[in-house]
Amino acid sequence: MRWCRFRVGEKVSYGLVEGDEVAQVMGTPFGRHRRTGTRLPLSEVKLLVPCVPPTFYAAGVNYMDHVTGTAALLGRSAEPPAKPDIGYRANNALTGHGDPIVIPGDATQDVQYEGELVVVISKQAKDLREDQVWDYILGYTIGNDVSERTWQHGDRTLWRAKNADTFKPMGPWIDTEADPAEMRTTVRLNHRVVADFATNNMIYGIATYLSVMTKYITLYPGDVVWMGTDGIPQNMKPGDVVEVEISGIGTLQNPVLAEGT
Amino acid sequence: MRWCRFRVGEKVSYGLVEGDEVAQVMGTPFGRHRRTGTRLPLSEVKLLVPCVPPTFYAAGVNYMDHVTGTAALLGRSAEPPAKPDIGYRANNALTGHGDPIVIPGDATQDVQYEGELVVVISKQAKDLREDQVWDYILGYTIGNDVSERTWQHGDRTLWRAKNADTFKPMGPWIDTEADPAEMRTTVRLNHRVVADFATNNMIYGIATYLSVMTKYITLYPGDVVWMGTDGIPQNMKPGDVVEVEISGIGTLQNPVLAEGT
Repeated sequence: MRWCRFRVGEKVSYGLVEGDEVAQVMGTPFGRHRRTGTRLPLSEVKLLVPCVPPTFYAAGVNYMDHVTGTAALLGRSAEPPAKPDIGYRANNALTGHGDPIVIPGDATQDVQYEGELVVVISKQAKDLREDQVWDYILGYTIGNDVSERTWQHGDRTLWRAKNADTFKPMGPWIDTEADPAEMRTTVRLNHRVVADFATNNMIYGIATYLSVMTKYITLYPGDVVWMGTDGIPQNMKPGDVVEVEISGIGTLQNPVLAEGT
Repeated sequence: MRWCRFRVGEKVSYGLVEGDEVAQVMGTPFGRHRRTGTRLPLSEVKLLVPCVPPTFYAAGVNYMDHVTGTAALLGRSAEPPAKPDIGYRANNALTGHGDPIVIPGDATQDVQYEGELVVVISKQAKDLREDQVWDYILGYTIGNDVSERTWQHGDRTLWRAKNADTFKPMGPWIDTEADPAEMRTTVRLNHRVVADFATNNMIYGIATYLSVMTKYITLYPGDVVWMGTDGIPQNMKPGDVVEVEISGIGTLQNPVLAEGT
């Protein structure tokens, strides 16, 4: 099943993507819902981020090739995170499939994509064992953790480096049947492959993260957990098109624009 | 005007605190609303956090005595932040006036209060000049930025140090007329004053923060910005009661419990 969220006119609805159509749903995937009977061509609806999380979690550094490659670029020793300390991103930065990534006027040229698997939480959860976490996952979507590297290394927090408006494309939908063990993440910049990795090849996997997090944190329906990226991202520039494809889910595509254009 | 949010039975409403009564309101302070005509004794309603923010911002280090005192404790040199880089907290950790702060079972004894002024955003805002920010503030409430210092210094992020469940008491209500220039923040632990400072004595003030933030970030109605604390906080232990009073707003009071009790 593929849950999407879309706008027709002023109205925002959830829907189920079925082939090239969307079946409109009343309610949400996190509670009571039913089909309205309305079906719309997928090409005619404006897809929004598939959910707006109460809390927006992100693993950050979570793949070994990203650790070693980034360390080499910065002339540092490669140290993977010692434990699964979850981080955060901000809702203001979320933007949907097809929407532009807008590069702020004073950003450097080092604005980069990061293709990431996104876990969507289905129900309230606390103190989960690793074997229990799968019952609390609605499904998976795709995120692009756009990052301005100069700000990332120079600011006290990741606020504008990772959370400038439009820096967090997420979508196109939530797939409830995809299996992380079978996924590959492929990033294309202007239709050229620039990253390709086994999605599940994480330093700390989904079960580990959710189990450790819920020792201290209650997860709520619609919370999202971005699982990190692999490899060494490249710069994007205005006019580019960036795509993150994860097999079993779909493709998140966004154009890149300069602020004020 | 003092906006609160409360539960009666299963129903959650906004209300206006008037003396020792609450006038129930249909709608929210961020949009259309009207009085329902129902009035309830303030002592009989369960106050909730006065809003649930789309994004939960926090200035972190923002008072000079806190900078110098913390640096002395850690044996480091005192360096104030070079610029107003905003940080984040997480909604899972929010809890209301009167609710317990629950200390996780494996926390150290270094669990501390931080009394903070909270700015509540009234409407969507981008690219604000410093003289414009006041038109985008609904009012002010009080936050207690509870922190486990061992985790704060040892983990890669602030996830459980600052965002364990119940670590972010906020309330009791939003005062729309209080003036930050006139405020004093007083923290009491078991009714003994442990901190007392001029609320507005910030390294970077409200106008500076909101203006700089909105260069890159769109603020939305209900977003909150916690402005930091002054002085050197002390440890809290199970059985304690912590109060943060800010003149012109009110008092946020929470008991401290050990997990599992």
